Amino acid sequence: MIWNTNLRWRLPVVCLLLEVVMIVLFGVFVRYDMDADPHWVEEKAIKNLTTDLENEFYYRYPSFQDVHVMIFVGFGFLMTFLQRYGYSSVGFNFLLAAFGIQWALLMQGWLHSFDGRYILVNEGLINADFCVGSVCVAFGAVLGKVSPVQLLIMTLLQVTLFSVNEYILLNLLEVKDAGGSMTIHAFGAYFGLTVAWILYRPNLNQSEERKSSVYHSDLFAMIGTLFLWMYWPSFNSAISNHGDAQHRAVINTYCSLAACVLTSVALSSALHRTGKLDMVHIQNASLAGGVGLGTVAELMILPFGSLLIGFICGIVSTLGFVYLTPFLESRLRIQDTCGVHNLHGLPGIIGGVAGAVIASIANIDLYGEEGLAYTFGVERSKTSWNPNMQGRLQAAGLFVSLAMALVGGIIVGVILRLPFWGQPPDENCFDDAVYWE
Amino acid sequence: MIWNTNLRWRLPVVCLLLEVVMIVLFGVFVRYDMDADPHWVEEKAIKNLTTDLENEFYYRYPSFQDVHVMIFVGFGFLMTFLQRYGYSSVGFNFLLAAFGIQWALLMQGWLHSFDGRYILVNEGLINADFCVGSVCVAFGAVLGKVSPVQLLIMTLLQVTLFSVNEYILLNLLEVKDAGGSMTIHAFGAYFGLTVAWILYRPNLNQSEERKSSVYHSDLFAMIGTLFLWMYWPSFNSAISNHGDAQHRAVINTYCSLAACVLTSVALSSALHRTGKLDMVHIQNASLAGGVGLGTVAELMILPFGSLLIGFICGIVSTLGFVYLTPFLESRLRIQDTCGVHNLHGLPGIIGGVAGAVIASIANIDLYGEEGLAYTFGVERSKTSWNPNMQGRLQAAGLFVSLAMALVGGIIVGVILRLPFWGQPPDENCFDDAVYWE
Amino acid sequence: MIWNTNLRWRLPVVCLLLEVVMIVLFGVFVRYDMDADPHWVEEKAIKNLTTDLENEFYYRYPSFQDVHVMIFVGFGFLMTFLQRYGYSSVGFNFLLAAFGIQWALLMQGWLHSFDGRYILVNEGLINADFCVGSVCVAFGAVLGKVSPVQLLIMTLLQVTLFSVNEYILLNLLEVKDAGGSMTIHAFGAYFGLTVAWILYRPNLNQSEERKSSVYHSDLFAMIGTLFLWMYWPSFNSAISNHGDAQHRAVINTYCSLAACVLTSVALSSALHRTGKLDMVHIQNASLAGGVGLGTVAELMILPFGSLLIGFICGIVSTLGFVYLTPFLESRLRIQDTCGVHNLHGLPGIIGGVAGAVIASIANIDLYGEEGLAYTFGVERSKTSWNPNMQGRLQAAGLFVSLAMALVGGIIVGVILRLPFWGQPPDENCFDDAVYWE
Repeated sequence: MIWNTNLRWRLPVVCLLLEVVMIVLFGVFVRYDMDADPHWVEEKAIKNLTTDLENEFYYRYPSFQDVHVMIFVGFGFLMTFLQRYGYSSVGFNFLLAAFGIQWALLMQGWLHSFDGRYILVNEGLINADFCVGSVCVAFGAVLGKVSPVQLLIMTLLQVTLFSVNEYILLNLLEVKDAGGSMTIHAFGAYFGLTVAWILYRPNLNQSEERKSSVYHSDLFAMIGTLFLWMYWPSFNSAISNHGDAQHRAVINTYCSLAACVLTSVALSSALHRTGKLDMVHIQNASLAGGVGLGTVAELMILPFGSLLIGFICGIVSTLGFVYLTPFLESRLRIQDTCGVHNLHGLPGIIGGVAGAVIASIANIDLYGEEGLAYTFGVERSKTSWNPNMQGRLQAAGLFVSLAMALVGGIIVGVILRLPFWGQPPDENCFDDAVYWE
Repeated sequence: MIWNTNLRWRLPVVCLLLEVVMIVLFGVFVRYDMDADPHWVEEKAIKNLTTDLENEFYYRYPSFQDVHVMIFVGFGFLMTFLQRYGYSSVGFNFLLAAFGIQWALLMQGWLHSFDGRYILVNEGLINADFCVGSVCVAFGAVLGKVSPVQLLIMTLLQVTLFSVNEYILLNLLEVKDAGGSMTIHAFGAYFGLTVAWILYRPNLNQSEERKSSVYHSDLFAMIGTLFLWMYWPSFNSAISNHGDAQHRAVINTYCSLAACVLTSVALSSALHRTGKLDMVHIQNASLAGGVGLGTVAELMILPFGSLLIGFICGIVSTLGFVYLTPFLESRLRIQDTCGVHNLHGLPGIIGGVAGAVIASIANIDLYGEEGLAYTFGVERSKTSWNPNMQGRLQAAGLFVSLAMALVGGIIVGVILRLPFWGQPPDENCFDDAVYWE
Repeated sequence: MIWNTNLRWRLPVVCLLLEVVMIVLFGVFVRYDMDADPHWVEEKAIKNLTTDLENEFYYRYPSFQDVHVMIFVGFGFLMTFLQRYGYSSVGFNFLLAAFGIQWALLMQGWLHSFDGRYILVNEGLINADFCVGSVCVAFGAVLGKVSPVQLLIMTLLQVTLFSVNEYILLNLLEVKDAGGSMTIHAFGAYFGLTVAWILYRPNLNQSEERKSSVYHSDLFAMIGTLFLWMYWPSFNSAISNHGDAQHRAVINTYCSLAACVLTSVALSSALHRTGKLDMVHIQNASLAGGVGLGTVAELMILPFGSLLIGFICGIVSTLGFVYLTPFLESRLRIQDTCGVHNLHGLPGIIGGVAGAVIASIANIDLYGEEGLAYTFGVERSKTSWNPNMQGRLQAAGLFVSLAMALVGGIIVGVILRLPFWGQPPDENCFDDAVYWE
């Protein structure tokens, strides 16, 4: 198929239009939360706070910055493994994330922090970054095959769907999902895979040679991998309750990620004829432990439970790269450029299931009476709460996320199939030269 | 012109001499502030502090580290876009910043935290990094055309001028300039441009081919861009008042930077014949929103106001790269290697003007009575304070910064023109081979 | 010698076995410390804590993340300077560190936080990272000449030895060693050098050409250098006492590192025939100031004392690269790939000696009575404490570390010499192709 890839007016118009809409909506709706408002000095006196440190800023800011690095450097550079698509990997990720966080602030604001008149913005910036994280995941599935205009439209729609799904899970089903195994990773991956399925290109082999890496492109990708890996404890703990919950989420994620590296290396070597390691596995499967730990991060899974999840995720993810990705492409017509199914899809499901199991066995011995109520936020909802019910709600949350991803992915995929978005022809996929000077 | 580029004795002597002077001056003048002194345990009891967290360290350290990354990795790698000048970009930036922070601790110490006998050093390390930031900006203008000896001399003199200018603005005029639109960016850019003007090389086209980038050098530069972009909220909030001011500065900067990416992309595409994007714009113009937000970061500009500044800065900066930089070189004989005029000069002026406007419309409705006093630090100065006057002082601060930059730049430029600093001949500019093994 | 480098079953079996052992041991021994346990809510009430911020998490987490970056990105990328060994440098460092932190949590746990039944884990994650830091140092000495199986075995044994040595120094001798000049750097370096001595390869010149760098590999290495350099203040302050001690350690390390850059540059230029700089010196010697400051970081060395140590370390380290490394290889048969003797060995000794000197001149004038007790942790041990004795204990600690490194290195080296670990033949050293697809 021949498409016109000249973006001269399409891209500028879409960017400027979206940004003008953002400015107008921010002008109408967005104000500072009390913690970021000059009236906080007075609030502090009223609430009798003894220290400026009680400003939520100091609890969250270091974690926020780590998450920020994961979105922009982590995801951006992870995708630079393609030999001639580094500008687009980093550049388009930058563009979609910069737009996505603005739209996410609005969507999440309307659903979670709307006081009837204004959205009150504070360190909820973290949530906007989280939301965009799911778009970065989906981007990995369609990487190299879409135009920046398509990416902006996908971002607009996916952020919307994400926010609705997140609202259903967190506010209606009241599930726990600290690190977003379900809301971010499983949703993002299956949404992206569905879009990739709709956008299937039977003749993509025409750009096959550019789909591989070269020596230095793999080192750039390792920058992405390592910043994702190192800061994942911040990701999984960023929005947890103050104190022990944040602390525990960090320890659990740290353990899971460490175990995951060893099983990724083990499987990578075991599955090669002469035992050599594959950079693709090291770059990706070593992160699966962070994804799989997302839902249970702040729960009482104990350190060995975290190691176990990392252990399993590393194995499943590496097996996925070796056996499942080729199968998806040849049989199910799903071309998953970065293997997001192995890094975010399967581990996301493992995380959701683990969450259901761990929640259902929660008890006062493990958590203490106050601790149980605090961890599951019980006092603020219903007294009829019990762990078993929580477990079933967690499972329901996983199904809702997958259903939203599939249905949403089909709708968005169909929209992105329209022939005027400037998408590249098959022989120019994975090539920066189409969109970059 | 033929210069001798053998630095064998010049560079070592300058480095060792400067460092010995630093050690002597630190020995005579520098001691720990109470927050970093073992007597703090006693101080804590006297002040009746309930928690160790009241040590200023915990308020500032995460922001400090982010700023530190911006200076060394951010600025250093941003300049690696040149195909054969990566060692020098990162290495000389490292050298000048390492020296500059020491001299800045002394200069700023004498002017701001001298107790009559000693300079008391604490998390004011941030201010030293800020000061050096302005030298990194100026370095961008002369990049590739000067020797490390020249850079050390420029750093010595620019840090001195910066500190005096900062003292005039912050202590005499009492302007607000949290993120340094005026003191760091506008001052640094116009200082550097003036030096570049004095050092004009009419035959620089002899090294033209090395002035462009290659594929991987542009990816290295994106590492710099992204760390600058991600940590800019820390930059603009690092020295703000505790609590809401730091929090607000982060939100504002985050918004401005996000908007700026969209307009940079829009303009980059719109200004290309077939709509292709230019890495130079993505690397640089996407950061202009952080510069433009510097002065107003902690003021009540509201989130949509921040978006608007980012929107404008992205447009102005990209237009600058396309039209103004060639004009400056051909007509005004200013060879601006990195285009600092577009990233720091113009957005710095926008930031200064925005500061004057926003300060002049401050009022009790927006800030609350206590909030207004706290934000503008009124109680500690005069009761005759009013927003209108503050606005005029802000405007005066911008003019003073520009004047200092021009006059200082001429003086320093003339000194750097002396023929014995080991500067490279025209045909060896932008080439690591001159100074690196 | 001909070795079989096919790792197909050896590497997977070792990885999986080690990880299964970890899971079992964690299951039996590791639980959350109170600060990371849901019972903390109750504890908070009992202890009458007024703010969630009193959770140790908030004191340590930002520093922990910085240290984490140093271990994985810092050490990993620092070693990518080799032109064809980037995958292994980053990848094997990733593997050994991921395993090492798990084993370190157990070893250090048994020795330091074992309550008779359980190891209680908390922000002590930092200590696990520290311990692994010493393995990364040793890795630098044997880089390119060992297989990943050998590295895992070395990690297992070195972490064990490190923990015992650390226990002797910190608990029995009660020395101060905040940033680990002795326990991490001197121990790691001399352990690694001893292993390299045992593994001496007389025909290593067969892979000589790959031992050098290429243009881009040196830029990748600078990423490692800069993250190590920037975050070193966090390293040296991460486990110091709350408040002034952490604050002071940051200031001292910042000063030392800054001075070190200038003397590294000066010596690098002075030692070259035409005054050119050598990237190896800039990448490594500029960090020696952080190593040398490790023991005294939290002591009253005063800022000028820190500058002085950095000054000396930069000179010694650069001289080491130019004169000592060739001497070690040709005369002592020690092939030190990364020059860890110059970056960690000599500066580690300087740091240990400085610690002995500075401790022995401690007095109440400098520290205050309470400050002296708090800094040296006197109240919790003996009343017969005096600075002179502390100085002698510090010196003893240095000797113990060196002795442990030599004896341990010989034992581990002999084990690693066994011919079935998949080590590369002489002509394939420093080559990713042996172990990577």
